[in-house]
Amino acid sequence: MPYRAPVSDISFCLENVVGFDRVQGTELFAEASTDLVQAMLTEAGRICEEVIAPLNRDGDLHPAKLENGVVRTSPGFAEGYRALAEAGFTGISADPEYGGLGLPHTVTTAVNEMIGSACLSLQLNPLMTQGQIEALEHHATDEIKALYLPKLTSGEWCGTMNLTEPQAGSDVGALTTKAEPKGDGTYAISGQKIYISWGDNDFAENIVHLVLARLPDAPAGTKGISLFLVPKKLPDADGNPGVANDLKVVSLEHKMGLHGSPTCVMQYDGATGWLIGAENKGMAAMFTMMNNARLGVGVQGLSIAEAAYQHALAYALDRKQGRTGGGTGMIVDHADVRRMLMEMKAETFAARALCLDLAVSIDLAKTGDDQAAARAAFLTPIAKAYGTETGIKVANTGIQVHGGMGFIEETGAAQFARDVRVTAIYEGTNGIQAMDLAGRKLMDGGDAAFALLDEIAATESDFADTIRPMVDALRKTTEDMLARDMADRFGGAVPFLMAYARVLGAHYHAKAAASGDATRKALAQFFITRLLPEAQALMAQARCGTDGLYDLSPDDLAA
Amino acid sequence: MPYRAPVSDISFCLENVVGFDRVQGTELFAEASTDLVQAMLTEAGRICEEVIAPLNRDGDLHPAKLENGVVRTSPGFAEGYRALAEAGFTGISADPEYGGLGLPHTVTTAVNEMIGSACLSLQLNPLMTQGQIEALEHHATDEIKALYLPKLTSGEWCGTMNLTEPQAGSDVGALTTKAEPKGDGTYAISGQKIYISWGDNDFAENIVHLVLARLPDAPAGTKGISLFLVPKKLPDADGNPGVANDLKVVSLEHKMGLHGSPTCVMQYDGATGWLIGAENKGMAAMFTMMNNARLGVGVQGLSIAEAAYQHALAYALDRKQGRTGGGTGMIVDHADVRRMLMEMKAETFAARALCLDLAVSIDLAKTGDDQAAARAAFLTPIAKAYGTETGIKVANTGIQVHGGMGFIEETGAAQFARDVRVTAIYEGTNGIQAMDLAGRKLMDGGDAAFALLDEIAATESDFADTIRPMVDALRKTTEDMLARDMADRFGGAVPFLMAYARVLGAHYHAKAAASGDATRKALAQFFITRLLPEAQALMAQARCGTDGLYDLSPDDLAA
Repeated sequence: MPYRAPVSDISFCLENVVGFDRVQGTELFAEASTDLVQAMLTEAGRICEEVIAPLNRDGDLHPAKLENGVVRTSPGFAEGYRALAEAGFTGISADPEYGGLGLPHTVTTAVNEMIGSACLSLQLNPLMTQGQIEALEHHATDEIKALYLPKLTSGEWCGTMNLTEPQAGSDVGALTTKAEPKGDGTYAISGQKIYISWGDNDFAENIVHLVLARLPDAPAGTKGISLFLVPKKLPDADGNPGVANDLKVVSLEHKMGLHGSPTCVMQYDGATGWLIGAENKGMAAMFTMMNNARLGVGVQGLSIAEAAYQHALAYALDRKQGRTGGGTGMIVDHADVRRMLMEMKAETFAARALCLDLAVSIDLAKTGDDQAAARAAFLTPIAKAYGTETGIKVANTGIQVHGGMGFIEETGAAQFARDVRVTAIYEGTNGIQAMDLAGRKLMDGGDAAFALLDEIAATESDFADTIRPMVDALRKTTEDMLARDMADRFGGAVPFLMAYARVLGAHYHAKAAASGDATRKALAQFFITRLLPEAQALMAQARCGTDGLYDLSPDDLAA
Repeated sequence: MPYRAPVSDISFCLENVVGFDRVQGTELFAEASTDLVQAMLTEAGRICEEVIAPLNRDGDLHPAKLENGVVRTSPGFAEGYRALAEAGFTGISADPEYGGLGLPHTVTTAVNEMIGSACLSLQLNPLMTQGQIEALEHHATDEIKALYLPKLTSGEWCGTMNLTEPQAGSDVGALTTKAEPKGDGTYAISGQKIYISWGDNDFAENIVHLVLARLPDAPAGTKGISLFLVPKKLPDADGNPGVANDLKVVSLEHKMGLHGSPTCVMQYDGATGWLIGAENKGMAAMFTMMNNARLGVGVQGLSIAEAAYQHALAYALDRKQGRTGGGTGMIVDHADVRRMLMEMKAETFAARALCLDLAVSIDLAKTGDDQAAARAAFLTPIAKAYGTETGIKVANTGIQVHGGMGFIEETGAAQFARDVRVTAIYEGTNGIQAMDLAGRKLMDGGDAAFALLDEIAATESDFADTIRPMVDALRKTTEDMLARDMADRFGGAVPFLMAYARVLGAHYHAKAAASGDATRKALAQFFITRLLPEAQALMAQARCGTDGLYDLSPDDLAA
């Protein structure tokens, strides 16, 4: 079932739901004309359909392998990567001074969605590089920028992020990788990093690792972490890849999915690195790119939701089974199949709107709009968690639409479910996202939350009378959350986040329906009638906080 | 993380929640003393822990293979199978006349749960044989019974079910496999069957296939289907496996999970078969065993829920990450991890209680209790769908508890999620279950439904005031469902079924809490406070019926 890039749905969203014209109206993004953006999306869609999507199954069947210390990537991935790089997709939002297009992050978000639908394993590669470019733009010296950014922006070199260590996952502050000053302005980096996505490949001239490590005598915890740039090959005087640095890929993980993406255990044995940003301020540097990276992973969930939906729909339109009483005569006519497909489509649309809405706020924030920045910060954990949960849910439903064929790998439905599963885990688990929302993102006393709720409540639509009581209930739930101490909030944080996602989803659907399109209205009706009520159960859970969670001891849990 | 058989929880359930003493009080099952049952469960638990559970990962890593037409099973599976057969687990509820123990199906259900937790791929084998024994007990001639039942009951021979064909899945009536009378009382069976679980193996002396096929000039659809027994090797005059029958395994499926269970494409080329039951009454014969088979698959979901919960808990008790403010210092102390574990435990308990409750009704029905029979019929689709959805949900949450390790196959958490996924599909998809509930199972005008709701409403507990309004709402939702025509019900059937599962879960937890145990009460509080409210959203969906589901045309869906 070939992938068809949803360019028209993305364009509709930009125009009718998330107000992309506000970004286009800024001086910073004045060049992002609708024609230019449309051309970019169309070209990205074409490449994804024709070049990238055909690679997806090969990535699953022929995982990246470690051979004599070198990662051999899946068949066709090198060509696919080059097509993406040559089209400039790594540097859509990168600084034009170093070869980027300087277009809004919203455009990057839309393009990333399509690449992810076509082949999530491969998409993760430029996604990592995009994050690294952003980190270097903000924190690197001009010298480093001049040396690395052109190569990363063009896609000649790839970037990675090295945070996790065996004992330091969600608790980044527990990391122990060391950075010793070598006296010449560089540092010797030593330690082991795990879960390094695309830690190596055989199609880029060089791989540039951003590595979190500790300087000698650094304070404990997150306050003693610094960020280092550690290239696989040390650039020579001309800036070309020179001698090998003292680092290696130790092994690749055998994963549930994303087989085409090599997940590396990396060993640094006194590798030469350069400090990025200030000493002991590595976490701050990481946080710069965290919002975009988290949105990027939320978009990965959206990518799989869209792909799994298209895949399931194609099957439902082609599979005959039982009497359907007219219509196409195919299983798409069965009420329960129709219900599943409507749910998949409605959830996917809500996830897309949320991701693009957040991207627009990120873009507006770049123009100095502080309210947009606060809005972006608040939406970020919601987009990451809801986008990825939607990917998981829709892929799972996609299997169900396929019936018995869904469990057979040849069909491809199962791969979507296996690939997307990690998105709820990496870049901060969805539990961490929820704690961020209920904790850090309410530290403004709820200003950003209430501003968002006001915005939703003020939106006129045919569904406003149904949505407003939910907004009121969510306001009360937010007040309740604010009244609890921090530790107490975390027991209700995940349903709290998902309740926001439900109300936001209804809001986006209502805006889409307001366009007057009958199909949009019917889909909105479905979401608001059938899915929005879940918000009440989620709020009931959220309001429980930590109540009763510790009434069973660890021994009781094991009994 | 070794599996620990939950014998004490099962015993608690039998005693305090599902009233197993009512079964023990019947003449038919008078021999099923608590001591005997306890001894059986304990021995089953020991075998599952020591012999079966160690095979599970090998089954995943080394799938069954087809070599020169013969299925080679995963390492250790032959020994594991023999241990199960020798312990008599295939024939726990089989007729003592043919070597069975004649114990209640409730005991079989409890034992099957444990085998499934230990190794679902292997458990599916005796589960299929149990179903076949039941079908033969009801419909075979004495001659067939005498020849086959002792071998099947002892586990020397294995049984399979052959229903599905490429064009006939949920729509069994579309099957085309032919049965031509050979004039000697036997039939020549010709056709292809797919998705045949354990269609062959290398450890049983013989494999006995039950095959649905059409006699010449049979009516179209389900009214023209007959059931045939087709052994892999034709028994000789002494009843021992003789010459090979004209059938073969064409290929094995490459599946998302359950790799240890060979899923076969079977080809019958004029194979000799014997008619079971009356001509054209094959569907009726299949329905005899359908209730038990559907419960059996619901139990498979429960099995994985229990195993995945234990696995995740062990990880959470052993993994240190971040500050937890006292307690064990491990991630089990984090509120969101605790929430996930409590949810897994609470859902698993509800699924277990539902499966055992249904098993008790099945046993009582066997003693001629018509009300129990109606209750069993009503609970069957709920147990199948809720049991399997619980398996999928809990396994998915288990991955999340593991964080990054959850996505790494070595951990084992992912295997649970992959293995259990098919249970929502086979033996009637969960959509089919829901249509059965909202359609066929309401054909009594709602008598069984309302009797169940009355039973729940009449149960006194500390939570009765919370549960009763939900029962009232469910009664109204059921009335609403009854008022709709059949086709219209199916658009709300799945949430309708899940709403029943939520209310039943609360009911079981409330009964468990009434035992006075503080841990049971805390778990009940968790379920009833946090999960029961979902029933309202589910009922809201159910009440939508098919409203609006067809407002998008197939073209709109694809737009």
